[in-house]
Amino acid sequence: MKDPLRELTGIVQSVALSESPDEQIQQVVIAISRAIGADVCSLYRKADCDNMVLVACHGLETPSPLVLPGGTGLVGLVARSRRPINLSDAATHPDFVHIPGLEEDAFPGFCGVPLVRRGEVVGVLVVLHRRQYRVSDETEAFLLTLASHLALVLVDIKPSGVPIPRPPNQRITGQKGAPGVGIGRVRLCRQYDLDAVPDTACDDIERTVQEWHNLLVTVSEDLCEEREALIGDAGASIRGIFDAYQMMLNDTTLKDRVESEIRTGRSLPSALRLAVHYFSDLFLAMEDAYLKARHEDIRHLGNKLFHAWRGGQHAQPVSGDQDSPVVLVGTQVSVSDIAAVPGENLAGVVCLEGSSLSHTAVLANALGVPVVVSISVLPDMNDGDELIVDGNTGHVILRPTKTVREEYRRLMVRRQRFLDRLESIHGKPAITTDGVRIELLSNTGLLADITPGLKAGAEGVGLYRTEIPFMVRSSFPGEEEQVQVYRQVLSAYAGMPVYMRTLDVGGDKQLPYLHMEPEENPALGWRGIRFTLDNIPLLMVQVRAMIRASQGLDNLHILLPMVSATDELDIFLGLLDDVCRQLQDEGYNIHCPQVGVMVEVPAAISQLIFWRKRIDFVSIGSNDLSQYLLALDRNNARVASRYDPVHPAVLHEIQRIVHITNTCGLPVSLCGEMGSDPVAVVLLAGMGIQRLSMSSAKLPEIKWLIRSISQTAARELLDEALKLESVSDIRTLVQNRLQSLGLGELTV
Amino acid sequence: MKDPLRELTGIVQSVALSESPDEQIQQVVIAISRAIGADVCSLYRKADCDNMVLVACHGLETPSPLVLPGGTGLVGLVARSRRPINLSDAATHPDFVHIPGLEEDAFPGFCGVPLVRRGEVVGVLVVLHRRQYRVSDETEAFLLTLASHLALVLVDIKPSGVPIPRPPNQRITGQKGAPGVGIGRVRLCRQYDLDAVPDTACDDIERTVQEWHNLLVTVSEDLCEEREALIGDAGASIRGIFDAYQMMLNDTTLKDRVESEIRTGRSLPSALRLAVHYFSDLFLAMEDAYLKARHEDIRHLGNKLFHAWRGGQHAQPVSGDQDSPVVLVGTQVSVSDIAAVPGENLAGVVCLEGSSLSHTAVLANALGVPVVVSISVLPDMNDGDELIVDGNTGHVILRPTKTVREEYRRLMVRRQRFLDRLESIHGKPAITTDGVRIELLSNTGLLADITPGLKAGAEGVGLYRTEIPFMVRSSFPGEEEQVQVYRQVLSAYAGMPVYMRTLDVGGDKQLPYLHMEPEENPALGWRGIRFTLDNIPLLMVQVRAMIRASQGLDNLHILLPMVSATDELDIFLGLLDDVCRQLQDEGYNIHCPQVGVMVEVPAAISQLIFWRKRIDFVSIGSNDLSQYLLALDRNNARVASRYDPVHPAVLHEIQRIVHITNTCGLPVSLCGEMGSDPVAVVLLAGMGIQRLSMSSAKLPEIKWLIRSISQTAARELLDEALKLESVSDIRTLVQNRLQSLGLGELTV
Repeated sequence: MKDPLRELTGIVQSVALSESPDEQIQQVVIAISRAIGADVCSLYRKADCDNMVLVACHGLETPSPLVLPGGTGLVGLVARSRRPINLSDAATHPDFVHIPGLEEDAFPGFCGVPLVRRGEVVGVLVVLHRRQYRVSDETEAFLLTLASHLALVLVDIKPSGVPIPRPPNQRITGQKGAPGVGIGRVRLCRQYDLDAVPDTACDDIERTVQEWHNLLVTVSEDLCEEREALIGDAGASIRGIFDAYQMMLNDTTLKDRVESEIRTGRSLPSALRLAVHYFSDLFLAMEDAYLKARHEDIRHLGNKLFHAWRGGQHAQPVSGDQDSPVVLVGTQVSVSDIAAVPGENLAGVVCLEGSSLSHTAVLANALGVPVVVSISVLPDMNDGDELIVDGNTGHVILRPTKTVREEYRRLMVRRQRFLDRLESIHGKPAITTDGVRIELLSNTGLLADITPGLKAGAEGVGLYRTEIPFMVRSSFPGEEEQVQVYRQVLSAYAGMPVYMRTLDVGGDKQLPYLHMEPEENPALGWRGIRFTLDNIPLLMVQVRAMIRASQGLDNLHILLPMVSATDELDIFLGLLDDVCRQLQDEGYNIHCPQVGVMVEVPAAISQLIFWRKRIDFVSIGSNDLSQYLLALDRNNARVASRYDPVHPAVLHEIQRIVHITNTCGLPVSLCGEMGSDPVAVVLLAGMGIQRLSMSSAKLPEIKWLIRSISQTAARELLDEALKLESVSDIRTLVQNRLQSLGLGELTV
Repeated sequence: MKDPLRELTGIVQSVALSESPDEQIQQVVIAISRAIGADVCSLYRKADCDNMVLVACHGLETPSPLVLPGGTGLVGLVARSRRPINLSDAATHPDFVHIPGLEEDAFPGFCGVPLVRRGEVVGVLVVLHRRQYRVSDETEAFLLTLASHLALVLVDIKPSGVPIPRPPNQRITGQKGAPGVGIGRVRLCRQYDLDAVPDTACDDIERTVQEWHNLLVTVSEDLCEEREALIGDAGASIRGIFDAYQMMLNDTTLKDRVESEIRTGRSLPSALRLAVHYFSDLFLAMEDAYLKARHEDIRHLGNKLFHAWRGGQHAQPVSGDQDSPVVLVGTQVSVSDIAAVPGENLAGVVCLEGSSLSHTAVLANALGVPVVVSISVLPDMNDGDELIVDGNTGHVILRPTKTVREEYRRLMVRRQRFLDRLESIHGKPAITTDGVRIELLSNTGLLADITPGLKAGAEGVGLYRTEIPFMVRSSFPGEEEQVQVYRQVLSAYAGMPVYMRTLDVGGDKQLPYLHMEPEENPALGWRGIRFTLDNIPLLMVQVRAMIRASQGLDNLHILLPMVSATDELDIFLGLLDDVCRQLQDEGYNIHCPQVGVMVEVPAAISQLIFWRKRIDFVSIGSNDLSQYLLALDRNNARVASRYDPVHPAVLHEIQRIVHITNTCGLPVSLCGEMGSDPVAVVLLAGMGIQRLSMSSAKLPEIKWLIRSISQTAARELLDEALKLESVSDIRTLVQNRLQSLGLGELTV
């Protein structure tokens, strides 16, 4: 081997260039034999019961299929010992097994290396030599390197000789999008795929611009129709979603950007694709899951515009199977797809992409329809296949048998009883059975989310994210514009507290009009208060707008993101004094608002004692706090599975925060996904948290949970949980207790 | 304004396209006037005493120079209030001031916005209208956006009318590279700039390959000569640095990679540039400062090869000014540049780039020569200018006056006395005046660093980084190769503990032969034990090699990086059992080594109580721990100034760790830059830390410090420090105390 790296690259390329999976793995074993001069190269794949199936072999006749029983032979030894086994005379090794039909005895030189994926052995690569020969240390290391590569590349390749099974009860794992269980027949949602539009020129710029303006009007009218069709079913709470789309359509930013692209000579679909990508990437780059999810809205809208441009009608109501329940399945399922199915027929939604924060999930939730998002694979399925959508666990079952179907029907009946119960506590406070009151507030960042929050019974806004107006425009929003936006939120929640977070951008190129270098670790970079304190005029204008907006309402609370040092707080407080004095000098009748910090940087915890005289309240930002405590970016697919907010260390630190804030006499709330995770909520109640803020869709269930437990029991559970060493032990402990209290509906 | 973003882009481009700085800012004010239809646009820049100097104006005759006295007028108001001031009738405003010679009274419409950089007002942008007109909210926001952009772009532009001063005592701030003070005359080091080599083809591949092989021999011989020239001055401790270069030269990886590039038809310098960039980028992408610094070695070597190819001699000894002390100044200063100056004549080194961990700094330190690295600007200077290099504070003073020069001469005398004192405690233990012993170990990762560590009196290796052999090759190093490397370290430190960290790569594309997706936040990603547990065969081979290498020495301690959950530890311990059993079965006479965790992920702190029965020791990785606690990437220039290991929150958490480990009966050490920061070391001694590990260059000073204080005094200082709210208060407290104890030499 002259240059192992080049050999490796060559072998990997040979995988990519081959046409069929069968040919691909055959090419790999041939390339490996050639690279290291081996007589035989075989690739085994782990199957059920640790059996090893031969999937490719070069240099030796093999019986087909060849299955080595679990753990036997040298191949079994390699898998078991999880390291290379390199022998000059294989037959003398105690683990050697003669396999009938396989003339391996003629090849004494054996080297086997394990293929490992995410810590699990998934296969074994074997090379054999006809002479008594132990491969060199260098070759062994090369094979190990290659195996670690092949484990990632090959694990999804199925040799074509093996028939693809279409078994009943095929279970697919995804994530919870909206709760409930539904059974229906698949309807695949076509993708109006704007992404695939090529870059083409337009013939007549003025005519194309006119066409674009007409398209906006058409789609705007379509949206109105769809909205009206849905209002009857789900009430006013979903109006906001359509209003948000309308707002985006009517906003000059998208309109102007597409128009600019056309004026450079591009065709309408090309211009639309570029503009939609531009805005959706801005949102996609954000850390905050809620803001990130907004990129889907922009993509949906883009696809809708593209579909309408192609002359498509909005999706037609189903004909023929009018009575049969439908499950919508697609890479993405849009709000319009949902609108096209009569409400009583929609049994569920399954998306390959998306999150529980997407408007598709929010809308489905409002309609009482279960959603599973982010499924690992879109399995082979056809229109009309039967499907169970279990939004409570995030599972999908394809082609269920009768027994499984009936099991799930029972779950559906339970779910309905549960929803009836939630309805019955509407308007009542969240109070434990032993009389401890916990305030429940909503998280929001779009005016469209105000109504759903109020309707769900939110007692204020626990986290108002101010980023959106800064992101969808071509320059900072002016003071007057910000006053208008903030005033709407503050007055909708008049008499209730609204916690407004100052701008938390930075770290990634999120504000297109501001010079921001890309950073290697944006989550540990120039963001939150670090960014705004370096851009003081921007912060001055925002704080002025907030305070002016709360004139006469006085329900504004200012929340500072990413505070990690006392001087940051002191500089802000100086600035706030300045703003208040300026506004009073200008004749505004305003009061200085309460100020608090987000506890999300771990360094904040031990410094609260220093800050107690400077601030009025504390809000735990559990998403970022967990991320920093665990040094784990949960948006990173490689490590996301290790993330869980009920991690023992996160629980310990949150209890520490609650303890310190109690000592300091500071009110403490929590905003973050922990606040709507039933297991976490029980433990937080046990800690004595006073206020939780969450997406309004989750609020009724959490209220029901709090009204069903006693704080004494919660505290006992917490004490037990804090002694446990793993997330799974903690979840099992709390879930079992909730089951025994008849709260199983929340814990599945 | 049809499209503010386009206007903004246009204005920024007009800055870039103009030729002279004068013209640039003039273009900006013209473009702004045009974009928003203003009659006048002026740009002021903040000067001394808050005075505002007009640097550009369009639409109005202005006296020259125009200086507005500090804080006066509307421009002063904008700067003071740090937000836009937008008025329809400026003259009626109480802050309006009539400026003689400036006909502003004719322009009642006034809008001024501040230019802010890193939180400081650096200028004011003003637009005026001839009519009574308040610009729209949108235009005001546009100006604010533009101002935040201009503040970054324009701050370094000096209008050419202003003469560039060459004042005496010009002070330039950098970072400490190596301690001491030196005075000498500038010698600018030419850059043999490999980076600038264009991509050219070669005529004759075989001849070029031969040329490359010859070049390697030539440079190898040059290095030998340079090494011999230096040995006399600084002793054997620096031999290792040259050996490291030789190792890189002789390693087939660089040789093969350049050869491969030539074989694709590239000329020798092009091939060399590509290969050098490839390897240096691998190191540059690493989080670990020590490994990151290795990229400089590769660049130096690349430039040296390039220079030799161009037929250059290695730098000539100075002629003429033989007696005069020399300060080497350059973007980078190489080890060869240093070798070219007779030892007694080298007064200091100043680099625009680099760090205290570069071999240039390490070599200079061994020679007793002060180094300042990473200076903010390379000011206007010529060969022969006089320069003071203050490596104790990281400052450089250009063209010092006699008074300043004499002040520094006194410091040099003090420094020499200090070095004599360090020499006098060689071989003695680090023990406080009240008898508390603290073990001092060295951090390393290159075999070349072994000798300096032993020479400095290290009592073991506190952190052995195992990454380098994994990075400079084209596949994983094999088990035998690893055994060889580890054996050298373990046997050099026979009888002393060696703490070897398992592979800590991942997060960035550091291993070229392994498929690793780029990550958005590598520091929070797939790295450390997360990576190795997902690649178990790799970890098995490494652990096998470590244990085999310690056979008969039994001084191996295994240190696990990035542990954040109990199951990670359990999986590793299972694997370790497996390895030990396998090795014993294979006939090796080995013992299972002690195992400990790096406490660097904050989640580890509260879980130590769970891990106490599973591990034998704990090592605090203070660099990463601080980074996660503060959510601050210190490699990010935007936020790096906020990083300091004596941050109150970091001190609190480290004290918490020491307290927990004491309770659990676990020995605790600290490796990280804190361990060689005198202020931090005093506080750590106060906490009762038992073991510190640091780069060997820092070890003698830290030993002297420990031998000069009592633990009682350190504990009292710690108690005071923990009550302080800011880094600067803490540093001042401890430094004052050290000064009063006569330890000022360490604290400057």
